[in-house]
Amino acid sequence: MYQWATDLFPICRSLTGQGVRDTLSYLQQQIPELTIESIKSGEQVFDWQVPQEWNIKQAFIENESGERVIDFANSNLHVMGYSEPIDKIIELEELNAHLYSLPNQPDAIPYITSYYQRRWGFCVTENQRKALKPGKYRVKIDSTLEDGILNYGQLLIKGRSDKEVLLSTYVCHPSLANNELSGPVVTTALAQWLKCLTTTEYSYRIIFVPETIGAITYVSRHFEHMKANTIAGFVVTCVGDNNDYSFVPSRSEKSLADKVALHALKHSVDSFQQYTFLQRGSDERQYCAPGVDLPVCSVMRTKYGEYPEYHTSLDNLDVISPEGLQGGFSIIQQCLLLLESNHKYQVTVLCEPQLGKRGLYPTLSSMTEDYTDVITMMDFIAYCDGEHDLIDIANKIGCYATDLIALANRLFNEGLLKKITE
Amino acid sequence: MYQWATDLFPICRSLTGQGVRDTLSYLQQQIPELTIESIKSGEQVFDWQVPQEWNIKQAFIENESGERVIDFANSNLHVMGYSEPIDKIIELEELNAHLYSLPNQPDAIPYITSYYQRRWGFCVTENQRKALKPGKYRVKIDSTLEDGILNYGQLLIKGRSDKEVLLSTYVCHPSLANNELSGPVVTTALAQWLKCLTTTEYSYRIIFVPETIGAITYVSRHFEHMKANTIAGFVVTCVGDNNDYSFVPSRSEKSLADKVALHALKHSVDSFQQYTFLQRGSDERQYCAPGVDLPVCSVMRTKYGEYPEYHTSLDNLDVISPEGLQGGFSIIQQCLLLLESNHKYQVTVLCEPQLGKRGLYPTLSSMTEDYTDVITMMDFIAYCDGEHDLIDIANKIGCYATDLIALANRLFNEGLLKKITE
Amino acid sequence: MYQWATDLFPICRSLTGQGVRDTLSYLQQQIPELTIESIKSGEQVFDWQVPQEWNIKQAFIENESGERVIDFANSNLHVMGYSEPIDKIIELEELNAHLYSLPNQPDAIPYITSYYQRRWGFCVTENQRKALKPGKYRVKIDSTLEDGILNYGQLLIKGRSDKEVLLSTYVCHPSLANNELSGPVVTTALAQWLKCLTTTEYSYRIIFVPETIGAITYVSRHFEHMKANTIAGFVVTCVGDNNDYSFVPSRSEKSLADKVALHALKHSVDSFQQYTFLQRGSDERQYCAPGVDLPVCSVMRTKYGEYPEYHTSLDNLDVISPEGLQGGFSIIQQCLLLLESNHKYQVTVLCEPQLGKRGLYPTLSSMTEDYTDVITMMDFIAYCDGEHDLIDIANKIGCYATDLIALANRLFNEGLLKKITE
Repeated sequence: MYQWATDLFPICRSLTGQGVRDTLSYLQQQIPELTIESIKSGEQVFDWQVPQEWNIKQAFIENESGERVIDFANSNLHVMGYSEPIDKIIELEELNAHLYSLPNQPDAIPYITSYYQRRWGFCVTENQRKALKPGKYRVKIDSTLEDGILNYGQLLIKGRSDKEVLLSTYVCHPSLANNELSGPVVTTALAQWLKCLTTTEYSYRIIFVPETIGAITYVSRHFEHMKANTIAGFVVTCVGDNNDYSFVPSRSEKSLADKVALHALKHSVDSFQQYTFLQRGSDERQYCAPGVDLPVCSVMRTKYGEYPEYHTSLDNLDVISPEGLQGGFSIIQQCLLLLESNHKYQVTVLCEPQLGKRGLYPTLSSMTEDYTDVITMMDFIAYCDGEHDLIDIANKIGCYATDLIALANRLFNEGLLKKITE
Repeated sequence: MYQWATDLFPICRSLTGQGVRDTLSYLQQQIPELTIESIKSGEQVFDWQVPQEWNIKQAFIENESGERVIDFANSNLHVMGYSEPIDKIIELEELNAHLYSLPNQPDAIPYITSYYQRRWGFCVTENQRKALKPGKYRVKIDSTLEDGILNYGQLLIKGRSDKEVLLSTYVCHPSLANNELSGPVVTTALAQWLKCLTTTEYSYRIIFVPETIGAITYVSRHFEHMKANTIAGFVVTCVGDNNDYSFVPSRSEKSLADKVALHALKHSVDSFQQYTFLQRGSDERQYCAPGVDLPVCSVMRTKYGEYPEYHTSLDNLDVISPEGLQGGFSIIQQCLLLLESNHKYQVTVLCEPQLGKRGLYPTLSSMTEDYTDVITMMDFIAYCDGEHDLIDIANKIGCYATDLIALANRLFNEGLLKKITE
Repeated sequence: MYQWATDLFPICRSLTGQGVRDTLSYLQQQIPELTIESIKSGEQVFDWQVPQEWNIKQAFIENESGERVIDFANSNLHVMGYSEPIDKIIELEELNAHLYSLPNQPDAIPYITSYYQRRWGFCVTENQRKALKPGKYRVKIDSTLEDGILNYGQLLIKGRSDKEVLLSTYVCHPSLANNELSGPVVTTALAQWLKCLTTTEYSYRIIFVPETIGAITYVSRHFEHMKANTIAGFVVTCVGDNNDYSFVPSRSEKSLADKVALHALKHSVDSFQQYTFLQRGSDERQYCAPGVDLPVCSVMRTKYGEYPEYHTSLDNLDVISPEGLQGGFSIIQQCLLLLESNHKYQVTVLCEPQLGKRGLYPTLSSMTEDYTDVITMMDFIAYCDGEHDLIDIANKIGCYATDLIALANRLFNEGLLKKITE
C-alpha cells in the first residue's frame, strides 16, 4: 500500500482532469475490474452542476531577474485548485492579494481551492512570501478550464445477497498523503482482499470519487438502488498514519454501520476517539443527508482536521507509514468480517439443549474446573432468540463478536441454531 | 406592570365576591377584549360545587377599652378567607382558638382560608397575639356568605391555527404580591404584547380564574375544546421577584410545553431550579390531572413555598420589582416566541444543497477562516429531515433555537426548506 | 421451617430415586394437596431424555485391615451422584483416579455428580485422601441404575384469575442445606400461607422438581398452559442463610417478576446484591430459555456459588437458621403480596376530586400543618391514570408500593378509583 501511495503522490489531482484519470488508471492496474465512468460538465446532479474540467501544464512566479521563485514543478500545491489561466507582470502588492500562506506554519504550503468561483492564486509558505522583495513579478498559470468530464471509478463485487456494503473514498486532492492517498490505497487493498474471498454474504460497492461533487454525482445516478440495498457503508479516509483511531457515526448514530464499527473499534484497537455526526467532514455529508440517509459512517486513524499537517504540504509521505496503513486496513477489514457474520440465530429446541450428549458440556459436575468456555457457550445460546444479533449478544456477554463466530458455526452445524433472515 | 400590581394590591380578593370583580374590571381596562364570566353558586363542576359568594365590609377585635387591637382596615389578611360573620364578646382564651399566627415569623400575618367549612378566625402576627392581655374582647366580622356568583376573566386571541396556547393565572389571593399579583400583571402584559403582533401561528387562550375551583370550573365548561386544541400551556404565578427562575413540568414531564420551557430556560437565563411534577402546587394540578392531561407546565421566578414570605403579609410589594416582573415576562415571552417558530423543516433537495451559488458558502476553501456560522448552517440543514423540530436541532447542535430562526427563514426563502405540518 | 430442613437433611436425594420420593412424601404431610407425578425413564422431554432411576443402599472404601475408611453411612455426599455399582479390590493409585476432593477446603467433601455418563467415584475430604496409604482397597458401591421413574411434586392454588404465579424449587441435592433444603422448606411455608388466604387474585403453581431435567420435564408437559398464563415466577433457592439478599433477573430483565422483586427488595431489606441474567444458575435457565421465556426471576439470600460452603458438605444445617429462613420467606411473601395488589387504577372524576367533603383533606389552609400524608394521597391520585400500576406510582413518589395499598383501598371504596383490568 505504501508503494502505491508513493507512486500516486506526485500526480496533480483535482475534482476533474487528467490527474484523476491517471490516478484511476493506476488503481485499475491493481483491480482490473474497476470501471472508470465519465460525466459531462454541466450535467445537473441534484442541486449541483458538474463543473468544467480543469487541467494544468505549468505555473510559476518569476522575479525581475527571471528567477522562478515559486514553481508548480516543485509542488503541485503551489497553485490554487481550479485556478484560471493567467500570464502577466504585476507589482508585489497585487501579487500578495493572490498568495495564500499560513503564518502559524511558516514552512507549510496550504492546500486551497476555488472550485465554483473563478480566481487565480498561488499557495506558498509563509517564509517564501516574506522573502519576496518589492518589484515586478511575472505570474503564469498555464491551466485550462473547459467543458469536459468528471471521472470516478467503481467496482461491484457480487455476494450471495443483493444487499450491499458501500466503501467510498476520494481521489481529488493533489500531493496529500494521509488526507487523500491513504483512502484510495487502503480501499484498493480491501477490494483485492474481498475479491480473494471465495464467497461473501453481501455485495460490495466500492467507489473512488472526487469528494463532494463526485459523491453527489454518484448518489444522483444510483439513488434508488443504493437506498434499497445499502445495509452499511464506510467512507475511507485518513487511514494511513500511526497515531489515533477515530470514528464519525452516521447521522442516525445507530445504523448497522455504526454498531459494527463501534464494536470492532472497542474490541480490536487499544483506544479510539469517538466523534459525533456534527464533526463529520467528508462524503458522509452527502450519504447521510436528510432523505438520502444511507447507513454510512467513517472509521479512521487520526481524523481530518485533527492533525497539524492536515491540508498542507506537510501531509506528505512521512505522515503515513506501512504500519499506519495496515492498521487502517485491518480495522475496516474487522468491520467487514463482523458484518458478514453478524447474523441473528435462534435455538431450535425449547429449554437448554443437552450439550453433554454432543460432547460440548462436561459430563462431570465439579467446582474446580474452568468452565469459562462452557459458560460463554451457554450465555450465547441463552440469547439466540432470533432477536439479538451476534454483536448484541457479544455486547451482553462482554466479549468480541468475532470470537463467537466459531462457536456459532459449531452450534449451527450441530443443528442447534437456525439463522434468522430478516 | 409594577404600577398595576400597586393598584391591585389593596383589593381584598377571595374565591368569589366583589374583590375578584374589582380586579377583573381593572384588568379589563388594560385589555378591553377581556370578558368576565359568572357562574352561579351551587353549580356542579366535575366533583365540586361552586361555593357561595363571600363578601366582607369590615372586621376587628376590640379590647375592653374599645381599642381596635386588630383591624381588617389595616390588612385584609387579618380575616381568615371565607370567615362567617360574627359579632360577640368573648374571653381571651376563646379568642385564642380563633387566632392564627406564625411563631417562627413573629411579624408576619399568615394567609389562611377555610373555603369549604364554616369557620371564623383572625390572622395576626405572633407579636400581636402575645400582646393580648387576659380579658374580654369584642370580635366582629361583618361578612356575608350567600348564594351568588363566581367570576373569571377570559380572552381568546385568534391566530392562523385553531391550535391554542393556554395562559392561566389566578385572582383569588388578597394583598399578596409575588404569589398572586405578579401572575395577573405579567399575564396582562403578555396579552397586550400578543395582541400587538400582526399575526400569530397559534391562538392564545388567556384566563384569570380563582385558583383550584376557578380552574376546575373553567375546564368543566371548555373540556372538549381545550382537550382537542391545546398544544401547550403555562400557569403564570410567582413571576415577580428578582431571585431564582424555576420550572415545574407537566405530568408527563415531556409535553411540548415542557420541551419549550426547558429549552428557553437553559438558553436565556443564567440558572434555574428544576422541580418535578411532584412539587407542583397551582392550577397545573387540575390541567394535568389524569384524563384532563393538558400539556401545561409552570415557568416561574422563585417558586411558591420556596421563599420565606410566601403566604404571609410579608409577600408584599417589596418582594416584587419592575425588574423581577420584567424577567418573569421575558422568560414566558421567550417560550411563546419559541413555540411560534418551532417548526419541523425538511430540505427540498437530496444531498447537501449548493450554498455557494446562493452566496451562503465561502467560495474559497481555507483553513484560516472562521466558519462557525457556515458550520451551524450546514449542521442545521443536516437535521432538517422533517422529523426534528427547531428545538430538537438546536439541542443537537448545542445552541438556542431562537438563534436559528433567522437562518431557517433565510433558507426557507431560498426554497431550500419546506415546513412540515403535522 | 428449620425443623423440616433438619428432618429432610439426612435423605439421599438425587435426580431420581427413593430419596426424592421420601422428600416429596414428607412435604406432602405439610401440604396434603401436593400431588406426586411420575415420568418414565427414557421419555423424551424437548432435547433431553428422562434418565434411568438411581438408588443406592450402601457404599464404602475398605482398607486391607477391613477398616471402612470412607463410608456412605457417614455422609451421603461421599458417593458421586449417579455412580454405577462397583465392588472390587484395587490399588491406591487406581482408587485415586476415582476420588474427588478440594485441596483448598481440606475438610470439605465436594458434591459431585455424573448424571449422563456412567462413572463411579467417591467424594472425600482432602485430608481423608492424604491419609490413604499405598496398598489395596475394596471399593463397594451398592447402587442400581435402572429404568424407573422421575418424580416431582406439584400444587395449584386457585385464585380469582386463571393467571398464574409460578414458584419453583428443587429436590435433587443430597444433604445440602442452603443450596437445596432452604428452597423446598420456604416454598412449603409459602404454600401453607397462600392456602390460608381467603382468596387470592392470582392462581399459584408451586412445583418441587429435580433441577434442570425436572424443570425441563415440567415445562415440556405444561408448556402451552404456562406460556399462556404465567404472569410472574420465582425460583426459590438459597433462601436460608442469614447474610445477604440477592436478585437474579429474568432474561428480559424487565418482566413483571423483575419489577416486583426489585421494588420489594429496595424497600423491604437493607441491601441486596443485584446480579445480571448472565449470573443465573438454577432453573431460570430453563424457564427463561429463548422461546420459553417465562417471566421468572430469583430472589435469594446469599446466591449459589457466592458462599464458600456452596456444593460441599459444609453447606450443612449450620449455614441456615430459623432467622435466615424467615428472611427468605418474608422477602418472597412481600413479592407475592405486592403482585396481588399491583393494580392499575384510574380516577373516576376529572380534575382533582374534592377530598375535603369526604374528610380526606384539611378544611383549613395553613402552612404549619404536616401535610405529608395528604401530599402522598394527592400524588397517588395524580398518577392514577390507568397506565401506571401501583409500583410505578410508588417509584414516582419514592415510597414502598405496599404502603399505598390501604390508601388505594380507601379511595376505591370512596368510589374515586376504578381498577383497570388489562
